[in-house]
Amino acid sequence: MKLYGYFRSSAAYRVRIALNLKGLAYDQVAVNLVSGEQRGGDNLARNPQGLVPVLETDDGTRLTQSLAICEYLDERYPKPPLLPPDSEGRARVRALAQVVACEIHPLNNLKVLKYLTGELGTSEKTKLAWYRHWVSEGFDALETLLTDSTATGEFCHGDTPTLADVCLVPQVFNARRFECDMSAYPTIRRIAERCDILDAFKHAAPAAQPDAG
Amino acid sequence: MKLYGYFRSSAAYRVRIALNLKGLAYDQVAVNLVSGEQRGGDNLARNPQGLVPVLETDDGTRLTQSLAICEYLDERYPKPPLLPPDSEGRARVRALAQVVACEIHPLNNLKVLKYLTGELGTSEKTKLAWYRHWVSEGFDALETLLTDSTATGEFCHGDTPTLADVCLVPQVFNARRFECDMSAYPTIRRIAERCDILDAFKHAAPAAQPDAG
Repeated sequence: MKLYGYFRSSAAYRVRIALNLKGLAYDQVAVNLVSGEQRGGDNLARNPQGLVPVLETDDGTRLTQSLAICEYLDERYPKPPLLPPDSEGRARVRALAQVVACEIHPLNNLKVLKYLTGELGTSEKTKLAWYRHWVSEGFDALETLLTDSTATGEFCHGDTPTLADVCLVPQVFNARRFECDMSAYPTIRRIAERCDILDAFKHAAPAAQPDAG
Repeated sequence: MKLYGYFRSSAAYRVRIALNLKGLAYDQVAVNLVSGEQRGGDNLARNPQGLVPVLETDDGTRLTQSLAICEYLDERYPKPPLLPPDSEGRARVRALAQVVACEIHPLNNLKVLKYLTGELGTSEKTKLAWYRHWVSEGFDALETLLTDSTATGEFCHGDTPTLADVCLVPQVFNARRFECDMSAYPTIRRIAERCDILDAFKHAAPAAQPDAG
């Protein structure tokens, strides 16, 4: 399999973790988001959205959208599972993943930050406040969801990593990069630290990628 | 089952469509997003995110995040399916749904528009340009994805409605409400019109809800 990504892309980071957790081998092709390669013809041919990641399977099928890719991997390579066996548990894990993927990350990715400082002409300080606002709103909710539930274990759901951890860890990485205050999130921090001692997460980290600047 | 929602909430609209497609009966409880009921104690107890929808199942389990709820419904009530049987098809449907749910909608929901005109002090005109920008970026990609694939049928994927249509129709409704130019999206328009003749979609429309103002 071939993963078109970028070392700092949060969505590509999720897919790298999922691939690693499944023990799947993959080649990486870097698409430089800062220089705008994602909007170049090659990448648009792979994904009309002009985004990464794109996972190309061995038969040449190109898959887009990180959560859809992770679900695909979980269906095709069921061991170890990224979702628990019961429907209520699966709904909980998917909801936790979507707090990150549908509430926090979409507001804070590169194209949005560029629109803020470009079209809207906001200052760097205002951009940073925007970034931190959506992280804190999402993490406030996540911390409560994790703390209030007996389903939370060493990881977001039980004692093995799931799709929720796959999404949480890249978001925590980004929050730290933008110097968000993490003091109110002891459970999130504990889980992220637990994940980060696993090779699957360690090897997926931005700094460990071939295109890391 | 009980659905906590709001007639104009795009995410609640998705869940109403899914419930209707499955032929499931549900009671609706309105949470007025304009007056701020979603941040009231009752709603926060149901969902620490302070969002709708929340689906309360008959055994009292509360489910959040519209896509997670739809997947739950599809697992528990498999007929008619919201996802195709093959993994590649499922990945395609989920990716189409996520173009809406992870790329367009998160940027254009009420809390974000309020942040723009509030904290950022943007004008109504700038807010509207923001709204239309993310709709057109997402719809440009969706139109290409739908037009380029032989998997597209009467609906986004084949000739029966899937999770992709469940997400597309509320987004088209919103785009029209904000007077986005839809002329470049003949395939999106054709599919949305095809959906809207089905009772499941008709009965889920904002104007058909008990709390419609």
